[in-house]
Amino acid sequence: MKLYEQLANSIAQSIQEGVLCRGDKLPSVRQASVSRDVSAATVLEAYYLLEARGLITARERSGYFVTGGAVNMPSSPAPMIESQLESTEVDVSELVFEVLESIRLKSVVPLGSAFPSPLLFPRANLAKTMASSVQIMDPWASVDNLSAGDINLRRQIALRYMIDGLHVTADEIVVTNGALEALNLCLMAVARPGDTILIESPTFYAALQSIERIGLRAVEIPSHPKDGIDLAAMERAIVQHQPKACWLMTNFQNPLGSLLSNEKKQALVALITKYQLPLIEDDVYGELYFSDKRPVPAKAFDTDGLVMHCSSFSKCLAPGYRVGWVAPGRFIKTVARLKLTTTISASVPAQVGIAKYLQKGGYDKHLRNLRHALLVNQIKFVEAIERYFPAGTCLTLPQGGYFLWVKLPDNVNALELHKLALNNGISIAPGPIFSAQRHFTSYIRLNYGHIWDARIEAALATLGTLVLGLMPQSLP
Amino acid sequence: MKLYEQLANSIAQSIQEGVLCRGDKLPSVRQASVSRDVSAATVLEAYYLLEARGLITARERSGYFVTGGAVNMPSSPAPMIESQLESTEVDVSELVFEVLESIRLKSVVPLGSAFPSPLLFPRANLAKTMASSVQIMDPWASVDNLSAGDINLRRQIALRYMIDGLHVTADEIVVTNGALEALNLCLMAVARPGDTILIESPTFYAALQSIERIGLRAVEIPSHPKDGIDLAAMERAIVQHQPKACWLMTNFQNPLGSLLSNEKKQALVALITKYQLPLIEDDVYGELYFSDKRPVPAKAFDTDGLVMHCSSFSKCLAPGYRVGWVAPGRFIKTVARLKLTTTISASVPAQVGIAKYLQKGGYDKHLRNLRHALLVNQIKFVEAIERYFPAGTCLTLPQGGYFLWVKLPDNVNALELHKLALNNGISIAPGPIFSAQRHFTSYIRLNYGHIWDARIEAALATLGTLVLGLMPQSLP
Repeated sequence: MKLYEQLANSIAQSIQEGVLCRGDKLPSVRQASVSRDVSAATVLEAYYLLEARGLITARERSGYFVTGGAVNMPSSPAPMIESQLESTEVDVSELVFEVLESIRLKSVVPLGSAFPSPLLFPRANLAKTMASSVQIMDPWASVDNLSAGDINLRRQIALRYMIDGLHVTADEIVVTNGALEALNLCLMAVARPGDTILIESPTFYAALQSIERIGLRAVEIPSHPKDGIDLAAMERAIVQHQPKACWLMTNFQNPLGSLLSNEKKQALVALITKYQLPLIEDDVYGELYFSDKRPVPAKAFDTDGLVMHCSSFSKCLAPGYRVGWVAPGRFIKTVARLKLTTTISASVPAQVGIAKYLQKGGYDKHLRNLRHALLVNQIKFVEAIERYFPAGTCLTLPQGGYFLWVKLPDNVNALELHKLALNNGISIAPGPIFSAQRHFTSYIRLNYGHIWDARIEAALATLGTLVLGLMPQSLP
Repeated sequence: MKLYEQLANSIAQSIQEGVLCRGDKLPSVRQASVSRDVSAATVLEAYYLLEARGLITARERSGYFVTGGAVNMPSSPAPMIESQLESTEVDVSELVFEVLESIRLKSVVPLGSAFPSPLLFPRANLAKTMASSVQIMDPWASVDNLSAGDINLRRQIALRYMIDGLHVTADEIVVTNGALEALNLCLMAVARPGDTILIESPTFYAALQSIERIGLRAVEIPSHPKDGIDLAAMERAIVQHQPKACWLMTNFQNPLGSLLSNEKKQALVALITKYQLPLIEDDVYGELYFSDKRPVPAKAFDTDGLVMHCSSFSKCLAPGYRVGWVAPGRFIKTVARLKLTTTISASVPAQVGIAKYLQKGGYDKHLRNLRHALLVNQIKFVEAIERYFPAGTCLTLPQGGYFLWVKLPDNVNALELHKLALNNGISIAPGPIFSAQRHFTSYIRLNYGHIWDARIEAALATLGTLVLGLMPQSLP
């Protein structure tokens, strides 16, 4: 390997490991030449190579800046202390609901939304498929075998598990009203009021609400934007708090976008197996990967039936149809019965429509288009944030999903930004709604699952200006 | 009024009040002539009149028998003691689930089913309507305003409230995944684990399961097959147990078929208002009346926002679509938020399809057909039970819905009958699943919401034979 390649690889590694943060300025050619003890030409060649790889970019008269690779997000600041949700219940709920209600207005640019644009989905095709299958379905399908869900749909889901290398049969699946119901049923299956659940920090706010709703306690485990939950901290929490379950997103976590490697998933499963701790695996973004292959869920490594794998079609095929499912392992009987007493079944027309759509075989093509659209959007968003947001802004570069987790410059308050943004017709998801203890005060989650246009670019420009206005040094 | 009319009215009153029970033999003409001190001709004229009114019928060589009117069902045997569901939880749940699972087999004659035959519904028309409306719906409908439900559907529901004389606006309605979710959300809105709820005895088993599911306690209030819950007992229970809510069916209760008069509904609302006790009103059968007008719900008399009125389209239009709703009065905000954290929303295609169907205006015509079919079925079922079941069998004659509550001859065990019936390919719903304390051991609920045919008649004949075989006097 040539010297400039060695140098380029060394810098690339620093970028991958987060030593160099997106937006950081690289040393000048002269500085690098001195510090690395190589010629200026070698440094230049290395910088050219990194630029060709998309990791850095030259700005006229300013030098080279880091633009790609991993991003040096600070570790989660959530301390690992037990927070009794009961005591913070009203506060967190109120905050989350306020934010959700305010960002639901049709007129706002929905960067705070939890859903990708419905325009990215094959709505007409799916509706047509549903129409024809409902009109020819067995009349008794509407009252028979309601609880576990349409058998054709469960077979199609089982088939997809098989393709991903998991052995889950149709009988081991319960169809639900979206993944949220699946997650709620799993919680109820393994925990009683007063019990403790482990969650990530930050965590999807719906997890906080679900936990509050049934009177559970939560322990927040620090999670890293790049590779997810801190397993050592998790083990300490298991020993200390004897939780009844943990609830994690292993693939493209909301809001971090973190992805657990297969090795880390194996270690996670080994850990829960050691303590016989049920894992509620929320995997609604797994199909939205930007690499060449769907990341397997942790359930792939589970031999004890401890992993309750939850997913849905809401984020990748049929928003609003409210069809999700759970493969609850050893808890199948309990979950199926809870499903029956909670809502009886998911909507039958939606189930038979999706089953038929999957059977016809257009799903994978749609997913390829969807993933491509999301990746293109991510690039556009990241470029715009680099252009419009002040220095000191950091962000994740998730390898899937449609969320950016953005660290604002220090002391910029996300809740204030949320209010100002709303006044300007833009929604964001402020960091504190992702923590039972309202951490992440200077973070926001942006949804890039929207088709790029001038309105979105203008919204990001406005946001950047608002952030700048909130920076302490810009006060008079 | 002529003498024979006075006599006929007096006998009719005895029938209405349950002094004379369906199947009872009337005094012979000679006996009546003596005891009533009137001529034999007057008795005969009175009997003719009662026969013309459909209250009694002559059987060759046997005299006259009561065939119509109210039925002398024994009062509910449930003593008003507090049953802590936690302690009986597993038993009741297991029993209910066992029964439900056993009767779900397609091969059995579904007399134990909770659903009417899907063949009674306008499936093709509804599917076609849904197809066309989903294909033209605003794409953003699948992610906007999800929680409260489709605005067009809520407007249509509000319109039907208006026609029935209630003032409920679209904003006061939350669409749910069927009525069961509505009822569950109401329970969660007003009660915490350990709280006490008043229910009827007998009560719909799903109420027991819902109460168990979230760790509540229940007090069973005696309820009469004819006019429903005992309000005096209810007031005593309120004072004694300080419940957080009561859960009742005011119209065609499941399983009794009882109907509260408007006066009784007013008294019920006065009672809950006096104690500021929320009423969860389960009104899923209200549209299935056999008289000339839909009975209003208790909510019609509520001025304090205490009544949470729950209903659905599952029993009267769209089984399997899983679309219900609640008009939760003063609890609207809490219920809407719980809905969001429970399942986000009901399935959008099902909602827009039903909304369009209602808007087109075919619903009332369908309901008229459905009610007529159910009434015809009721008559067929009652005739067959009279023909095939042994003496000592009593049954209700509900004025709506599709359930018969049948009192078997004393000492015939409903759970034993259930097992024998299943072996013969027939399902029934045994009485004990309708009580937290497993009362009603000699009662069964039969579903007459199935299109009459030879298979059903044969099933009822078989059931009659099985009942006879279980009667103590028929033992060797």
